[in-house]
Amino acid sequence: MSGGYVEVFALEGIPEVRPGDDLPALLVAALRRAADALPLREDDVLVVTQKVVSKAEGAIVDLTTIEPRPEAVEFARRWDRDPRQLEVVLRQARRVVRWQNGVLITETPHGFICANGGVDASNVGPASGSIVTLLPVDPDASADLIRAAVRAAFGVDVPVIVSDSFGRPWRWGIMDVAIGVSGMQPLDDLRGTPDADGRVMKSTVRATADEIATAAELAFGKTAGRPAALVRGAQPTRGEGRIADVLMPREFDLFP
Amino acid sequence: MSGGYVEVFALEGIPEVRPGDDLPALLVAALRRAADALPLREDDVLVVTQKVVSKAEGAIVDLTTIEPRPEAVEFARRWDRDPRQLEVVLRQARRVVRWQNGVLITETPHGFICANGGVDASNVGPASGSIVTLLPVDPDASADLIRAAVRAAFGVDVPVIVSDSFGRPWRWGIMDVAIGVSGMQPLDDLRGTPDADGRVMKSTVRATADEIATAAELAFGKTAGRPAALVRGAQPTRGEGRIADVLMPREFDLFP
Repeated sequence: MSGGYVEVFALEGIPEVRPGDDLPALLVAALRRAADALPLREDDVLVVTQKVVSKAEGAIVDLTTIEPRPEAVEFARRWDRDPRQLEVVLRQARRVVRWQNGVLITETPHGFICANGGVDASNVGPASGSIVTLLPVDPDASADLIRAAVRAAFGVDVPVIVSDSFGRPWRWGIMDVAIGVSGMQPLDDLRGTPDADGRVMKSTVRATADEIATAAELAFGKTAGRPAALVRGAQPTRGEGRIADVLMPREFDLFP
Repeated sequence: MSGGYVEVFALEGIPEVRPGDDLPALLVAALRRAADALPLREDDVLVVTQKVVSKAEGAIVDLTTIEPRPEAVEFARRWDRDPRQLEVVLRQARRVVRWQNGVLITETPHGFICANGGVDASNVGPASGSIVTLLPVDPDASADLIRAAVRAAFGVDVPVIVSDSFGRPWRWGIMDVAIGVSGMQPLDDLRGTPDADGRVMKSTVRATADEIATAAELAFGKTAGRPAALVRGAQPTRGEGRIADVLMPREFDLFP
């Protein structure tokens, strides 16, 4: 359980990331620059945004190469969208969950259900209006590589979360969630843990990785070019969890 | 925008809250005890959990007084639930959104869509197995009262969020969201704000109040008896926002 105090430090000075860049090395360099003020600790979690992971891994598409299908052209015309982006989303999708009111919600190959399948046009670099990022192919593996590089550089085994901003039903606004984890359990199952009154809690599972991703986002600022942060003191359960642990199987899904 | 550094301090020593207690005064006392180490600042947000707000306001029901309807009895038997709690949820509900797989999701009178209509059995005090909390009648007003008491005591106008833990579709685990706000806008509309590359972002609205509620939760710990926290440095947009600003109107709801 938490110790009542959590700090979030955005890492500064990470340069614009380009395809083929060694992102783990860039993050290690940023942590090294911060190390005097901010020596890495065992109770840190390193949160890295999807955008820089996707860019480093080359998970990008140039929309000028995309020929949209007629349904995408029609939907885009009606709702003022880019038909080529819609086409990329549809090609990536495992299934279409909703496609109405200007919104395209799909299930990604990873099993995430989100607007535009995580395909994103903003913040992808200067003079790049036609470039979109896809989600990393295996965000857990991306997190594994970053964690290994940090451990090799500092001798501290820090859990890593790859984060992205998702909308949600019923409420306006996006929040950050985890799309990949390494070195921690993404959920904390408090079922069976006595609550403060000594009664046993029946059904509390906390989305710890998503909560840590959201806390990191508060320090990023959306337009400030900070793609990574340390979250200190959140005390997630260590272990070799995978993001698939968070995903609700279809048979439990009340909003298919 | 954020300055890249956010701290979350759980407030310690708040006693068990009972109906009729002056919660704003209890929070002021906790802030006063913390004041040497932690003088209140303009960039703080005070987050208070629904549970203590509801208890102080007497928004509780003794299940021994509740006669469940036959549908609640049947559903409870099938899914190992308390039929009296289901009855309370149904009486409070503006509408039933889903009632299957052991899950009852309703729309509350406030317009929140959540499991069990926010009616909650855990952490409601010793020897109180039959007591459940309802949501506060007007959580914005609850936040207003706390904010006014803090301002009167310290001369600092700190935004206040009343938080609760909600599940969400497609992902296991609960996260905290805001159910009432005072002194801030619950959303930050970045539409029209240039991103780091100078391009104009088309559709980014951040759920700032929900993000701050979640950050606070990381410091609460679920069973540690900490019902309030200061979140410092998140820099929400000040103003007289209301939680209704967050709620998506029915015509935009793709998951009715």
